[in-house]
Amino acid sequence: MSLLDRIAVLHDWNPNAYRPFRIDGVQVGRITDTGAGLLAGFPDVFRITAAAVDLHPGLGDLDTRSAAVHDVIVQLAERGDVRQPRGETYGISEGWNAPTRLRLDRGLVPLFGVKSYGVHVNGFVRGPDGLKMWIGRRAPDKRVAPGKLDHMVAGGLAHGYAVDETVVKEAAEEADVPEALARRAKPVGALTYVTELEQGLRDDTLFLFDLELPADFAPRNTDGELTGFALWTLDDVMARVRETDDFKFNVAPVLIDFFLRHGLLDPDREPDYLSIVRRLHAGP
Amino acid sequence: MSLLDRIAVLHDWNPNAYRPFRIDGVQVGRITDTGAGLLAGFPDVFRITAAAVDLHPGLGDLDTRSAAVHDVIVQLAERGDVRQPRGETYGISEGWNAPTRLRLDRGLVPLFGVKSYGVHVNGFVRGPDGLKMWIGRRAPDKRVAPGKLDHMVAGGLAHGYAVDETVVKEAAEEADVPEALARRAKPVGALTYVTELEQGLRDDTLFLFDLELPADFAPRNTDGELTGFALWTLDDVMARVRETDDFKFNVAPVLIDFFLRHGLLDPDREPDYLSIVRRLHAGP
Repeated sequence: MSLLDRIAVLHDWNPNAYRPFRIDGVQVGRITDTGAGLLAGFPDVFRITAAAVDLHPGLGDLDTRSAAVHDVIVQLAERGDVRQPRGETYGISEGWNAPTRLRLDRGLVPLFGVKSYGVHVNGFVRGPDGLKMWIGRRAPDKRVAPGKLDHMVAGGLAHGYAVDETVVKEAAEEADVPEALARRAKPVGALTYVTELEQGLRDDTLFLFDLELPADFAPRNTDGELTGFALWTLDDVMARVRETDDFKFNVAPVLIDFFLRHGLLDPDREPDYLSIVRRLHAGP
Repeated sequence: MSLLDRIAVLHDWNPNAYRPFRIDGVQVGRITDTGAGLLAGFPDVFRITAAAVDLHPGLGDLDTRSAAVHDVIVQLAERGDVRQPRGETYGISEGWNAPTRLRLDRGLVPLFGVKSYGVHVNGFVRGPDGLKMWIGRRAPDKRVAPGKLDHMVAGGLAHGYAVDETVVKEAAEEADVPEALARRAKPVGALTYVTELEQGLRDDTLFLFDLELPADFAPRNTDGELTGFALWTLDDVMARVRETDDFKFNVAPVLIDFFLRHGLLDPDREPDYLSIVRRLHAGP
């Protein structure tokens, strides 16, 4: 096991297994044959060919098309073909800053292989004996990665929320961080990954933040998504990332980026140093 | 002008203009038609076909082949076809950590399009009113980028030197940094770029360091490569990077990486944020 093993998951997909999902003729996602098969029963909403799945051009405005797609999802979920909607929507488009072409329930994002965005916050404390980091444990009933180790604060960008607003909202919900403290989180980069999940494709971009916390702050989960927190030494975090897959798959790479940025990996002593740097940021 | 303009230079080359340069049958570089033409006069040292330039397989060991290539370079330089050797050699191989297949004068690295490695050190001071950075000005007689703005410390990895040794050596030569202080420099990542120069291709990897300096330290150049230093606010550094190309071409991207890592760019307010992150680290 090595740090590179933790990064491999970032680019783990087979492009040949997908056809484009297009809205207004613009590709916004990727759909498997199985996914296209599920949508084929709704010809008023999706036009399906061997080459692509198109949102029906008759569904003109954002509200109309979002409602029509949601209706399809509800019917598929009732039949047990897809998971129940989660009740939170993401804005779908071809890229960051491009206008939203569809609002889609976040639980169905992998089925359409559309781009999603989130924030991950490294909550750390600077002490006399080096850095420590607050590590959370995910609740056993989470859909994704139940029981895995996690960042103090992480969450998806819901439709209409800015990046900094999402940090403040998630910090309050997940770790009871007061807004004034959450606003001290510093943006330190981003990480994009594309990986195959059971339900389809995850094409996700994480905005990364470092939040230096006072020694007397202790996070407390308020939304039931985490079962608790502990303050780890960075040595312990790094050993666990290296030797196990106990951290959620998309948390480990963010931690490796933290190790890099904070001088915890040494180019003379880490043989994979350059490969780690390159593959953290390699395109899909 | 934008930060993205400063990054474009990192991947500015036409793959079709080069043929592989191979040693022991392994590609270690890329040579233009012009370069191949210059080497064609030395059939005992180079075997040249339309498909590749090979180091002659009869040149068995490292010393023999390095001496033979150096002899070619000296002859070409005497004719004025290439620049005079600089008297410092780089270790040439197919990748970081791969055994050296050839020692080559650093001035001829672009002719062969081989990989080179260096260190760039952001020398900064943390003050009550934010970060400041020591900025150097390159001497007017430098071969590369004369008179441009530069890092406090930067230099190439000579054959046989480790990354941390290079930081200490260059810090002493370029900025009179005592060894104990130079050893506090923290490795914070790497940046690889491939760009076309007049003499060929530069395929360079920079190991990046942050060195936090005490307020009472002032750098002093000792090797004549820089004409002086000044302590700049980060706002001034960023404005100059955005609005001008006053910084040496491979310094500006390292500064942009510094801005990212230190929270000086805001994903909600910098429209190019994700493009900057991706293209800083995009492959060749």
